[in-house]
Amino acid sequence: LQGRRGVGPLWDRLALLAEADRLKSVQRATTLFDGSRNEFTGEHCWHVALFALVLAEHAIRPANAARVVRMLLLHDLVEIDAGDTPIHAGGDPAVQEAAELRAADRLFGLLPADQATEWRALWDVFEAAQSDDALFGKALDRLQPAKANLLTDGGNWPHYRVTRAQLDTRVGVKIRAGAPALWDWLEPRVDAWFARTRSAVF
Amino acid sequence: LQGRRGVGPLWDRLALLAEADRLKSVQRATTLFDGSRNEFTGEHCWHVALFALVLAEHAIRPANAARVVRMLLLHDLVEIDAGDTPIHAGGDPAVQEAAELRAADRLFGLLPADQATEWRALWDVFEAAQSDDALFGKALDRLQPAKANLLTDGGNWPHYRVTRAQLDTRVGVKIRAGAPALWDWLEPRVDAWFARTRSAVF
Ligand SMILES: [Ca+2]
Repeated sequence: LQGRRGVGPLWDRLALLAEADRLKSVQRATTLFDGSRNEFTGEHCWHVALFALVLAEHAIRPANAARVVRMLLLHDLVEIDAGDTPIHAGGDPAVQEAAELRAADRLFGLLPADQATEWRALWDVFEAAQSDDALFGKALDRLQPAKANLLTDGGNWPHYRVTRAQLDTRVGVKIRAGAPALWDWLEPRVDAWFARTRSAVF
Repeated sequence: LQGRRGVGPLWDRLALLAEADRLKSVQRATTLFDGSRNEFTGEHCWHVALFALVLAEHAIRPANAARVVRMLLLHDLVEIDAGDTPIHAGGDPAVQEAAELRAADRLFGLLPADQATEWRALWDVFEAAQSDDALFGKALDRLQPAKANLLTDGGNWPHYRVTRAQLDTRVGVKIRAGAPALWDWLEPRVDAWFARTRSAVF
């Protein structure tokens, strides 16, 4: 966690916040719910944090909503350096993971040492899905784009030729692990979309 | 807080979250820190929430960072109906306030009753700057766009012909009230910009 250090903790914090602004220019593979444009990562992080506040009661086990929000607000900062990896695009996970680790070193390393350590620990727990809060946060991080896709007639699923089985591995498993009640809500809608799409093709 | 009610609390919560997505399409008068485009309100809320997490120690009195974050994540939802009011544009505050109250009734009213009451109370406290947490949140809500303007050679200040005295009333007073240490950082930068601009004109 060695980073560039400014002339005091306030300067270092403001440097991280200025760098964070760049997350507003990282484009995701998902669109807004009305399909009008692609979503940027910064606003995605706001939306999933709001999901955590509103839906806390549906976590698999009682969640510390404040900690989930904190994780979700910072979980994608690494995309400033490493870019967004669409979950259905099939990149090499090892390459992406290495890039994100370098990004975490650099970005959290901008903060004063105590804060750098705390944020890095939160990010590590989230990435490894090592707590109930992390599992719930990860469920929301999958639910929000799935909802965007369902509202835009499948969104990017046709483009990536996502199968129902892939959707389960990449989305369903993670939502069930952190918020089974939300998967119970989502699953029939996913099934209906796949049934409708298949009947349109065959 | 009477709102449309769905078939259960989860449905109501998801309705609010779908409605919230529209905040990503409300454009603010400020740009991104690199000046590349105007900022949307959703990503602004993410950024100021991150300011609260990073800068909590600079609040005028010890802040409950989790509560400040919660307020900042929801404080601009009313813009979905009422639109953004640039602080330097000189609209009628009474007209805007009435529109925001109607928006708060409608939007928070989408939530289950207990959550609607809790969110509306948080929003009311924030709007009225009635707690130390609200004062700190409001300070950050002024600091972030001021920083964007300073990084883009005054940003929208020349367009709105903002004077140094207006900047103090609309920005300085609020930052000093919630986070004087942050105003100590900002003030010499503001002064330098005004000094430079005046010397360019005369
Ligand atoms: Ca994410």
